[in-house]
Amino acid sequence: MELTDRAMEWELLNAKLAQRTRGTPAFSTVARPQRPVISFGGGVPDPKSLPLDDLKEAAQAVLDEQGKEALQYGGPYGYEGLRELLAEQVRQIDKVNLSADGVTIVSGSSQGLENICFAFLDPGDVVITEETSFPGSLWTFRSHQAEPIGISLDREGLRTDILDEALKGLAQQGRHPKLIYTIPNFHNPTGVTQSLARRRELLELAHRYGVIVVEDDAYGDLRYDGERIPSLFSLSGGNGVLKMGTFSKTIAPGLRLGWVTGHEKVVASLTRMRLDMGTSPFVSRVVAEYMRQGKLAHHIAEVVSIYRKKRDCALANLGEKGASWVWAKPQGGFFLWLELPQGLDSRSVLERAHELGVGFIPGPPFFVSGDGGHYLRLAFSFVSLEEIATGIQALLQAIDITMNQHHKTTAAGKGQ
Amino acid sequence: MELTDRAMEWELLNAKLAQRTRGTPAFSTVARPQRPVISFGGGVPDPKSLPLDDLKEAAQAVLDEQGKEALQYGGPYGYEGLRELLAEQVRQIDKVNLSADGVTIVSGSSQGLENICFAFLDPGDVVITEETSFPGSLWTFRSHQAEPIGISLDREGLRTDILDEALKGLAQQGRHPKLIYTIPNFHNPTGVTQSLARRRELLELAHRYGVIVVEDDAYGDLRYDGERIPSLFSLSGGNGVLKMGTFSKTIAPGLRLGWVTGHEKVVASLTRMRLDMGTSPFVSRVVAEYMRQGKLAHHIAEVVSIYRKKRDCALANLGEKGASWVWAKPQGGFFLWLELPQGLDSRSVLERAHELGVGFIPGPPFFVSGDGGHYLRLAFSFVSLEEIATGIQALLQAIDITMNQHHKTTAAGKGQ
Repeated sequence: MELTDRAMEWELLNAKLAQRTRGTPAFSTVARPQRPVISFGGGVPDPKSLPLDDLKEAAQAVLDEQGKEALQYGGPYGYEGLRELLAEQVRQIDKVNLSADGVTIVSGSSQGLENICFAFLDPGDVVITEETSFPGSLWTFRSHQAEPIGISLDREGLRTDILDEALKGLAQQGRHPKLIYTIPNFHNPTGVTQSLARRRELLELAHRYGVIVVEDDAYGDLRYDGERIPSLFSLSGGNGVLKMGTFSKTIAPGLRLGWVTGHEKVVASLTRMRLDMGTSPFVSRVVAEYMRQGKLAHHIAEVVSIYRKKRDCALANLGEKGASWVWAKPQGGFFLWLELPQGLDSRSVLERAHELGVGFIPGPPFFVSGDGGHYLRLAFSFVSLEEIATGIQALLQAIDITMNQHHKTTAAGKGQ
Repeated sequence: MELTDRAMEWELLNAKLAQRTRGTPAFSTVARPQRPVISFGGGVPDPKSLPLDDLKEAAQAVLDEQGKEALQYGGPYGYEGLRELLAEQVRQIDKVNLSADGVTIVSGSSQGLENICFAFLDPGDVVITEETSFPGSLWTFRSHQAEPIGISLDREGLRTDILDEALKGLAQQGRHPKLIYTIPNFHNPTGVTQSLARRRELLELAHRYGVIVVEDDAYGDLRYDGERIPSLFSLSGGNGVLKMGTFSKTIAPGLRLGWVTGHEKVVASLTRMRLDMGTSPFVSRVVAEYMRQGKLAHHIAEVVSIYRKKRDCALANLGEKGASWVWAKPQGGFFLWLELPQGLDSRSVLERAHELGVGFIPGPPFFVSGDGGHYLRLAFSFVSLEEIATGIQALLQAIDITMNQHHKTTAAGKGQ
């Protein structure tokens, strides 16, 4: 082989890729538009809300007062001071008597889930998820060569009656799912909040069948209406549940900072499988400092008010017809989930929408089955109120155009 | 099962761990001493050298001027500005015409290696390493259920004659190693620098047998004597070689920031298997800013001078007898590798050393085979010059005590 023949060399390297790499399609929810759009795409925080000055102050304080500790290795558990602050939150809010060793710091909850999968999943393992779910999580399960099985959800969250049947059926086949992955608060993409009754039923089933519950609470702190419902972690007393949290939605994604809480021995297993020498002590200490200065609670109150306005603005602009497609009015989080009339393809809508300068994510990536072509997800978090107004009008227009084309095609088809 | 029975619950969870988790012993090179010691343990930078003020300035500039970009998601490749700076270094120093897409930003080179293993290794795959090697890397291979095979090294680095035999033997068994993992500069733990001839031989074998070379260059910029030898990446024109770099040794480990360079298509495969949504854009931009301000080159010159003094101080304090145990005088990096007389157990020496207030890492964790009880590694990077003087005296005393006990035991054994 010629050393300089790079194309040939790539063939060689490509043949060396692991099964998991060759078997996993690239993670991409949607093609990028050719020109700038008003983006209802990613679950990305409001750019104006990012607390630049307060983080700058915290970063200065950390480098002034604890720079030597912040800039050295911090170990796989992560910075103990931040773990202590998070454990205290769990003790206060979830009423679970958790020590700092029941918390591990991760580089965003996506890494938290990766860590859980790496520690728990063998190829061929089954993971139960909601049908629909966050595409990044489905991709993480598949990258670990596990098989996600989607359980439908309704306006109360995951359908525990269907879950019961599924677990029974799997058990009869000798298959024992390792994990039930659920997003109980302001579910991504549907916006649904799991009811208390469903949470209890889910836990009962998880314990009966011996399945670990992974509670993804990325959006839990961003509640705009109604009362907080106790977490699965809280309801289980912290038993059999791993709860993932993140600062990506409340402070900033660019920190890459989140956490996992669980039984101390499970957390020990997770940290044992952290091969990256832990999450940045520098970033962890900046956020701990920010929390100690009392900034986080204040900031969350502020962004909750911003996102409530954005949600209401989006709903108002959708009008009567648009609102009838909204699957469930979300009490928090970043998303509206629209169910268009059957047969209408949201990918065709997206093509029209791109032409009109608007982007969103069509339904299929959210479905374990890959179906769901007549659904679409709107994130109202990133765009301004003005963009929401303009963007929703353009979206409605794109839907109209697609509908008319669809009707024409259907009519033509019938005429033949 | 009782929801509150946490011990039982742990049994249940433990039974659910992946094969890779159950099969991998925890990563721990050495038991922690009971009291504070002068630590020759970890490969940790000089604490006084950490550029606190310059990083503070860079962090301020980033949050002032590019805060919104720094605090949002940055994607799996990492911050393009930093990738461009690193690609430019490769073009300048390695003379390989690499674009920014041939560089991916990782959270320390440990995560770089994790990413490479996740993308390339299936259970049962063979990875060739030097015998000895960095325990963290051996642990990463084993966590991916791969089998590291150690090839002896001498004062010119990895023994390519033995490598040739090993590859031939494996091929006869139908086994085709995926990776050759090597630390060519100031090897960890031996301090040896691979000669130019060996580098060429290694590449020739890798290409002949179709094995990907993973070049771990954590210490390459910290050269105290002699001339820079072209990297494997450079000698191969970037073909078939993935090179890992890190800011952990030159700037600060607490940043958790490193990079991998390679063929653009290989780098694309690596980023496809990054499940954590990429390394912190905030930290990446702080370091890019620090580099753009011209601070890195100056800082490296400064720490090179510090570490050269520390190495020389350690060698001087070892005296004639101690120096005769030093396996090879390192031209750079953080480590001295001591070969004690056969039969002397460095773990016994460590017990005595702890009593005298000194710590180091005994040989066995560095050996794929787990042998090497009469070796030990000293890191001279973290300790001050005063601590080096005191600590080395205590170490020599601990070796003396252990030797005398060993001789007594041996003599007593002979007498029986």
